[in-house]
Amino acid sequence: MNEQALNCINSRIAGCSFAIYPMTDQFVDVITTSLKNVDTSKVWIKTTDVETCVRGKITHVFDVTKALFLHAASTGHHVVFSATYSIGCPGDSDGDVYLSTDDHRLNLNTNNLQQEVAGKFSLYPLGGGNYMNIIYNQIEEMKLHGVKVSSIHYATRLDGDGKLIFDGLERVFTNLESSYSSHLVMTTTISANSPSKKGEIL
Amino acid sequence: MNEQALNCINSRIAGCSFAIYPMTDQFVDVITTSLKNVDTSKVWIKTTDVETCVRGKITHVFDVTKALFLHAASTGHHVVFSATYSIGCPGDSDGDVYLSTDDHRLNLNTNNLQQEVAGKFSLYPLGGGNYMNIIYNQIEEMKLHGVKVSSIHYATRLDGDGKLIFDGLERVFTNLESSYSSHLVMTTTISANSPSKKGEIL
Ligand SMILES: [Ca+2]
Repeated sequence: MNEQALNCINSRIAGCSFAIYPMTDQFVDVITTSLKNVDTSKVWIKTTDVETCVRGKITHVFDVTKALFLHAASTGHHVVFSATYSIGCPGDSDGDVYLSTDDHRLNLNTNNLQQEVAGKFSLYPLGGGNYMNIIYNQIEEMKLHGVKVSSIHYATRLDGDGKLIFDGLERVFTNLESSYSSHLVMTTTISANSPSKKGEIL
Repeated sequence: MNEQALNCINSRIAGCSFAIYPMTDQFVDVITTSLKNVDTSKVWIKTTDVETCVRGKITHVFDVTKALFLHAASTGHHVVFSATYSIGCPGDSDGDVYLSTDDHRLNLNTNNLQQEVAGKFSLYPLGGGNYMNIIYNQIEEMKLHGVKVSSIHYATRLDGDGKLIFDGLERVFTNLESSYSSHLVMTTTISANSPSKKGEIL
């Protein structure tokens, strides 16, 4: 095993590239207000004109992205969160220092926010492996936690309370990562306050 | 080879699950105006509160999604397109009838729309295979066609004219599909009229 491969396996830094889209003329205000309400000090964070990238422990990557979305949604505007969570070996080490943080979540107050959402997620375990049973088990567990799960093209649809859905996604990601320690990608889109009725054809 | 596997290989219907996010109070108008300007008669199409799914020949799937985004962007509002293109064996056949359409694109007038965009894309060839050289070659070809390409976490960043970027994405997808005939997923996010400067940290 060469040195680079070893570093990759030892590091296991998780990351999320995401954006929050507020469908309002006040979209900049919604984003900046949300950022002010969220403590991002346990993750590496970088924002460009296209996306924000956070990197660190799985726990904190989910804590921060969940909090940013739920605070944005609490403005009441139609807001969509679109994200790619990833762990494995992207060949870099930005933010590795954040892996030495403790596990205490900084944004637990987010769990006070009640927010119905509709969303979807897809898992791409790269490099093969027998992971389907794990995914099915995790989806069954989401149902037990009050999330409605249904099949759509290219993804699994999720309906329910926003914090339960983020917690479910984190469990799927964490359990797949621990049992299937290769390159793992999960994409998700979560929508709040849509004026369209559920499943309605525009 | 069982019958289902055979059907999958024969079918090769492409699809795209996507949404367009106009960051304006008039987001519904932007979407409906865009839909009015685009001919979707050569694809299967379904819209819910979370996404729109189009399915059919690769050519028409890209023709329609490119046209919908560029018409929405031509309103001048900050608009983001987020999509998952897929081909392979999702285990269903909705829209297979659209594979018998001819290859003539219905929305060629889209090429009259001039629109600078910033975006990113990621490729997930599922099931393994040696595809890295093909991806590198396609990215080199994008550069030759006037698209600026750069590296970011978990994706490749694209800057340039919107129609050139969509055409580049279609070439990558088409060439990977023809040389690597398994399950292929490409995710992309494309942003127009952002008030943020390129690469600016908010
Ligand atoms: Ca207004």
